[in-house]
Amino acid sequence: MDYTGRIQKLKRSLRRKNLDAILIGQPENRRYLSGYTPRDHSISESSGYLLVCARDDDYLLTDFRYKIQAEHEVHHAQVLIYTKGVHLLLRQLALELNLKRIGFESNYILHSSAIKLIQTCSEKDITITPTTELVEKMRLIKDQDELNKIRQSVQLNEHVFQSVMPTIDADCTELDIAINIENTMRHLGAESASFDTIVAIGLNSALPHAVPGKRRLKNNQPLMVDMGLILDGYCSDMTRTFVLGKADSRYLEIHKLVRKAQTAAIKFIRPGKTMKEVDKVARSLINDGGYGQNFGHALGHGVGLAVHEKPRLSSQSGVKLREGMVVTVEPGIYISDWGGVRLENMVVITRDGCEVLNHDTTWLDL
Amino acid sequence: MDYTGRIQKLKRSLRRKNLDAILIGQPENRRYLSGYTPRDHSISESSGYLLVCARDDDYLLTDFRYKIQAEHEVHHAQVLIYTKGVHLLLRQLALELNLKRIGFESNYILHSSAIKLIQTCSEKDITITPTTELVEKMRLIKDQDELNKIRQSVQLNEHVFQSVMPTIDADCTELDIAINIENTMRHLGAESASFDTIVAIGLNSALPHAVPGKRRLKNNQPLMVDMGLILDGYCSDMTRTFVLGKADSRYLEIHKLVRKAQTAAIKFIRPGKTMKEVDKVARSLINDGGYGQNFGHALGHGVGLAVHEKPRLSSQSGVKLREGMVVTVEPGIYISDWGGVRLENMVVITRDGCEVLNHDTTWLDL
Repeated sequence: MDYTGRIQKLKRSLRRKNLDAILIGQPENRRYLSGYTPRDHSISESSGYLLVCARDDDYLLTDFRYKIQAEHEVHHAQVLIYTKGVHLLLRQLALELNLKRIGFESNYILHSSAIKLIQTCSEKDITITPTTELVEKMRLIKDQDELNKIRQSVQLNEHVFQSVMPTIDADCTELDIAINIENTMRHLGAESASFDTIVAIGLNSALPHAVPGKRRLKNNQPLMVDMGLILDGYCSDMTRTFVLGKADSRYLEIHKLVRKAQTAAIKFIRPGKTMKEVDKVARSLINDGGYGQNFGHALGHGVGLAVHEKPRLSSQSGVKLREGMVVTVEPGIYISDWGGVRLENMVVITRDGCEVLNHDTTWLDL
Repeated sequence: MDYTGRIQKLKRSLRRKNLDAILIGQPENRRYLSGYTPRDHSISESSGYLLVCARDDDYLLTDFRYKIQAEHEVHHAQVLIYTKGVHLLLRQLALELNLKRIGFESNYILHSSAIKLIQTCSEKDITITPTTELVEKMRLIKDQDELNKIRQSVQLNEHVFQSVMPTIDADCTELDIAINIENTMRHLGAESASFDTIVAIGLNSALPHAVPGKRRLKNNQPLMVDMGLILDGYCSDMTRTFVLGKADSRYLEIHKLVRKAQTAAIKFIRPGKTMKEVDKVARSLINDGGYGQNFGHALGHGVGLAVHEKPRLSSQSGVKLREGMVVTVEPGIYISDWGGVRLENMVVITRDGCEVLNHDTTWLDL
């Protein structure tokens, strides 16, 4: 990974914004810039901050628990340990390095932590100022190294899906299937699932974010599986809905409509189109089919180091697609007293269209 | 669970602070007050906010994805759906209900989201103001319902540990053991692990937050297992370090010292003692044993709906122990070119001391 190139690009961006440095705590941003891999247990338990300086060398600030790992993984920044909070170490470093204006990530810091940073540093006339998405914007466009890793993640995810599906039968609960999927992911080398695997049988599939439970699979009942994994830092995300046995005519009608919306959107995607134009292609077809009220979420989202990242393929967004973006295309129809169908593939935007990264077609076209 | 009593207590606290309402987004706080169970995928993807009003009825604000679940789980608050962000729905509700001064959780909201709330509402002369730990303070002291659930969580966690340990042998990798533990948790009814299970062999145990990998277990090598689960919302957390085969004299010396520090701290604990006094009892013994530099974290932390919550049993805290608090007691010694030993039990503070919630003593006293 080109950590040096990324850091240099960020430094140029800092100089344009008259920032002497930026404090990066968002875990995927940290990893993108330095190769430091920990994920935070929660936003209030950070595993460290990268301090990228516009004109100086860079630092990785962390606590005792992560010292060995940080020194092992981070080669382009000096590791410093704080004992009484990052705000005090930051102030001390700012005084030593004469950093007068330091940015922080307003979209990934608690309000209370930001206030503490601002107050602690203002005592020494150091200005701490909010920034948004400086690194996220760099991550929008994937380079070849990243695309390779995403392809491998998608491929392994499909391999897991195709390995587990033949083993399920009417004795399986949603939870059995979900556990089986997540085990297989880890045994085959994934760092972890990229989100809690969704396995939803029958009515439970009407919840877009269903939690797997003790429901058992009956024949002729729809099954929704939404799964993804993290391989070498990069995420995959795929949904399939299908029926083991014989699907009834209503299921077939809805499945075909969702697939039609997905196919049309994928065909429409190319650089220069806005997110809302793409969303509209799928949404109009579902509207025309009479299910407009039953498709309540956006058409898709970016995938990379995070499983949900920018861009958002939504009816609210005027942002334009660009070559190298990776997004999901996942229309769905949810009916509370019946169930739901969602179909999700990942695509990478190419020079004149897009390439579908998923190759699994089992149960996709009925 | 006494949701009504908890909400009434919070309403009284709001009135004392001249707040007309408070917006609760922190997932465990939401669950504590209303029974709404979703955990957030990340802090930027909320599954909803509870609006508790000082004098009016209460509301659960969420989006389309969680509508069915919210209506199913939440009985004491009306469910309202936002489509364009919680800030706009909050402003509308505040105008309808004449709420002039609304608190938010400064310790669980992104800086950027807080700024957006504040600005959106100030356009209509509604004041949005930071609060800290109003609900966290209520959660410090566990009631009998909560203690029962915590006991069950600890008991199941030990059952999982005792079921899995006899199955491990020299062919197992850290990852095999961790996966086996997490599967067993879920098959036995846990919602999930309460944190990523730590299984660390040999040198890897020198990292307090080690990630399980492909290391295989060799005889006479130390093995550290730090595991916890969530059962019906409540967490457990336990660490054991031990040797399969014959421990060498250095291992025995260090293990006994850690156990001595733990036992002394537990014996010392009672209402009225400060966190730092308890920490000092364990830390002094480890200092005297010559390993003061190798115990770099706090002695323990609160456990309840969250696996890490207040109080922090740390050398920095002057807070006093009170009856009904639940904390871990987990001294550790970490040596980077050798490995580590950590022993962790949970205790509940009683009227005149504490009760150890763990009963597993396998490998605890050597």
